[in-house]
Amino acid sequence: MLDPKDWQAFRALSHAALDDALDYLQEIRDRPAWQEVPAEVQERLAEPLPQEPTPLDAVYAEFARSIMPYNSGNIHPRFFGWVQGTGTPTGALAELLAATMNSNVGGRNHGAIYVERAVIGWFRELFGFPTDASGILTIGTSAANLIAVLVARTRTLGANVRETGVNIEGGRLIAYTSSATHSCVRRAFEVSGLGSASLRVLAGDSLHRIDPATVARAVEEDRELGNRPFMVIANAGTVDVGAIDPLHELAELCEREGLWFHVDGAFGATAILAPSLAPKLHGIERADSIAFDFHKWLQAPYDAGCLLVRDGALHHATFASTPNYLTRMPRGLASAQPWFTDFTIDLSRSFRALKVWFTVKEHGAKRLGEAIEANVRQARLLGDLVDGNEAFELLAPVQLNIVCFRYRRDGMDEAALDALNDEIVIRLQESGEAVTSSTTIGGRRAIRACIVNQRTTDDDIRRTLAAIERIGDAV
Amino acid sequence: MLDPKDWQAFRALSHAALDDALDYLQEIRDRPAWQEVPAEVQERLAEPLPQEPTPLDAVYAEFARSIMPYNSGNIHPRFFGWVQGTGTPTGALAELLAATMNSNVGGRNHGAIYVERAVIGWFRELFGFPTDASGILTIGTSAANLIAVLVARTRTLGANVRETGVNIEGGRLIAYTSSATHSCVRRAFEVSGLGSASLRVLAGDSLHRIDPATVARAVEEDRELGNRPFMVIANAGTVDVGAIDPLHELAELCEREGLWFHVDGAFGATAILAPSLAPKLHGIERADSIAFDFHKWLQAPYDAGCLLVRDGALHHATFASTPNYLTRMPRGLASAQPWFTDFTIDLSRSFRALKVWFTVKEHGAKRLGEAIEANVRQARLLGDLVDGNEAFELLAPVQLNIVCFRYRRDGMDEAALDALNDEIVIRLQESGEAVTSSTTIGGRRAIRACIVNQRTTDDDIRRTLAAIERIGDAV
Repeated sequence: MLDPKDWQAFRALSHAALDDALDYLQEIRDRPAWQEVPAEVQERLAEPLPQEPTPLDAVYAEFARSIMPYNSGNIHPRFFGWVQGTGTPTGALAELLAATMNSNVGGRNHGAIYVERAVIGWFRELFGFPTDASGILTIGTSAANLIAVLVARTRTLGANVRETGVNIEGGRLIAYTSSATHSCVRRAFEVSGLGSASLRVLAGDSLHRIDPATVARAVEEDRELGNRPFMVIANAGTVDVGAIDPLHELAELCEREGLWFHVDGAFGATAILAPSLAPKLHGIERADSIAFDFHKWLQAPYDAGCLLVRDGALHHATFASTPNYLTRMPRGLASAQPWFTDFTIDLSRSFRALKVWFTVKEHGAKRLGEAIEANVRQARLLGDLVDGNEAFELLAPVQLNIVCFRYRRDGMDEAALDALNDEIVIRLQESGEAVTSSTTIGGRRAIRACIVNQRTTDDDIRRTLAAIERIGDAV
Repeated sequence: MLDPKDWQAFRALSHAALDDALDYLQEIRDRPAWQEVPAEVQERLAEPLPQEPTPLDAVYAEFARSIMPYNSGNIHPRFFGWVQGTGTPTGALAELLAATMNSNVGGRNHGAIYVERAVIGWFRELFGFPTDASGILTIGTSAANLIAVLVARTRTLGANVRETGVNIEGGRLIAYTSSATHSCVRRAFEVSGLGSASLRVLAGDSLHRIDPATVARAVEEDRELGNRPFMVIANAGTVDVGAIDPLHELAELCEREGLWFHVDGAFGATAILAPSLAPKLHGIERADSIAFDFHKWLQAPYDAGCLLVRDGALHHATFASTPNYLTRMPRGLASAQPWFTDFTIDLSRSFRALKVWFTVKEHGAKRLGEAIEANVRQARLLGDLVDGNEAFELLAPVQLNIVCFRYRRDGMDEAALDALNDEIVIRLQESGEAVTSSTTIGGRRAIRACIVNQRTTDDDIRRTLAAIERIGDAV
């Protein structure tokens, strides 16, 4: 009833739209890295609920005019704003195919189930996890970290916590992490009912890494206070500077102290694909759980994250249930246990594994690793250029793929320098030349360039820094 | 670096894939409603992590051979298995375009933000919510219900609960819902740390609706016990039989008792688009929050759900935070507050609003309502056919779009009838003729047909019932 009345016309329109999409990506370098949605377009989009149908070609024309030009920038070769992948044309095609099949991957017995299982199997293998480890694709690492906290909660409090809820009477559960940890981890503690008071945030070293000895002391202190240490959340690539915590030492500590060892590897975990970077991740194979994204350094289109859990049975025990209307059957569509919904919050879930499957199949692990290595090399290049230019100051050593620096001018006080650097970041975006973001490093406002971009060339790096210098001089 | 080396070849392949996808949907009626993934295909998919690249045309060929034929059934005109939409070709095209733009809709200032705001605005208008009500697109109603529980938790315990966590010392928070409520609501209580003991599950009436007087008594009892009643979760379309709770009376009760009034309207809420059905939803406009899906009766491809919250400030207070690396700016890409991540669990989020935007624009509210009305009429037709056939027994009155019935045979005991009906459901799926599911109604195993299918004709209904009778006779 909602399918095309005229399939031929739909076919023509969709082929034209596909060509537009491919032109758009093929010519992305010639487009602005960012441009603001004009006020009149914003107003046009804020229309009331349409009551009557609109011919599809008119809907498409409005999309092409009012929406498509205003992407969020991350597909551009000079986007370094935040840790965001570019996607690929193959990934976009995979989304078309996934939406055509329109599979609900909450469970049951169909092709998408086996693809998601395959993808999970690949990354289980990559991270050296056992074959009975479980996994689930999520919107992203935020949800994956939340699920990890919930599984760790189950391990400590028993599956009965699902019924009783959290109660600090028996001693507050405490997890340990560094001050460089992403805010989504705090949110996971808020959502789970443990509360962010259960997250002990410890200062890192000069490279933003947590010190295992500091964690060990905090564990001891908490035990003396009657708290219940239960979890360490390590970073494989912090959001501000790309620091990797000492994973091997933390694994030792967690084993000794009986703590759940979770790694938030949102983007950094996948650096294990690059032979030159894999040693930095030594110890990740000992984690109890690893959260990471496909839509960052693996360039799958948004959104797709993943959680791997060593103890698959515990993961299952944290979520599984079988109401009448989800009866499992020995044969037919309602077979093929376990179902993915028994490992996550959601029942209905899209076929997000397909874009990952296409990406990994097309490029293979080695080439994906090479793309990651190229970005790390580009970050070093940018760091060197910053270091060698008196107009700039590096605010943190370049450890992976993130460069935090600032434009400087003699005689300016700190507040003025902060404001100047924020203004530079905004003007750079407004120029459409490139995108970086702002953060604060050691109390000073920084220009932050996160290189997670398979389209970037060395020349893009040079051109971006030159634009920043030019804008800084002009402000 | 991961973009096509040969754009012309990529273009040719993607046009061919688009034609395959359109053929697939255009000929969907001629395909089996379900077919099992053969064992050798399952094995082939379970390959180790590919190290080397594979030419994209070979990857696509493997997809076409090993994955595409094995969809989860819901796109077929005779799929009535669970409450799942079919999607549309337009929705699939929108996914291609969204993945091409590859916007991260966690926040910032770009086109996708305004589209998601527009979509939320449309449904705020549809449900009679005020313009300062907030909304967020989610994977589905499971996550939307969870967020609603978290916002209601904030209202009762204060935003401080984010830090302190849940503690039953001050009295256990209690929510009220019917025994027909979906299991994802229980899961929301498990995840939130309140525990399912905080969900008072009350028996419904003969039509599976909750009785407001029963809720009122339970509230009184809980207060006497020192518990803290805080929330009512009403159903607009229960999963087993499509029952709609007395929303208006529950709204009255919640206002009187100071309880948060949440409506789980996963599929049923959108029936408000149909003039003949809207009166059944009277009272939904008084809800504090409404959760519903676009990928069910609105036929957007998976996944896309939504939560609307009347008190947008409270919704914001439940999630918002501003770490350094997410600094908001007055201009540029990092402007346009509030950001969607301040209303949900996730930071990175895909542009799932685009498929909803295309769907609503193309068809308009009226036609979407007509498609819903058609399914309800078809459910009545199926109910009448069941009722008029001695081989069958209706197990619940047809209230909306779900028909629960069983095949019967004189002289068979209940256990044998249960097993027979389960076997019929499996054999129907295996035949590829149609898909229904199994559930239990009043202790008896039922064949359950959920009609959420914009491709279904009346003939499909007749043909499905005839197949069930034929299989029943043959077992």
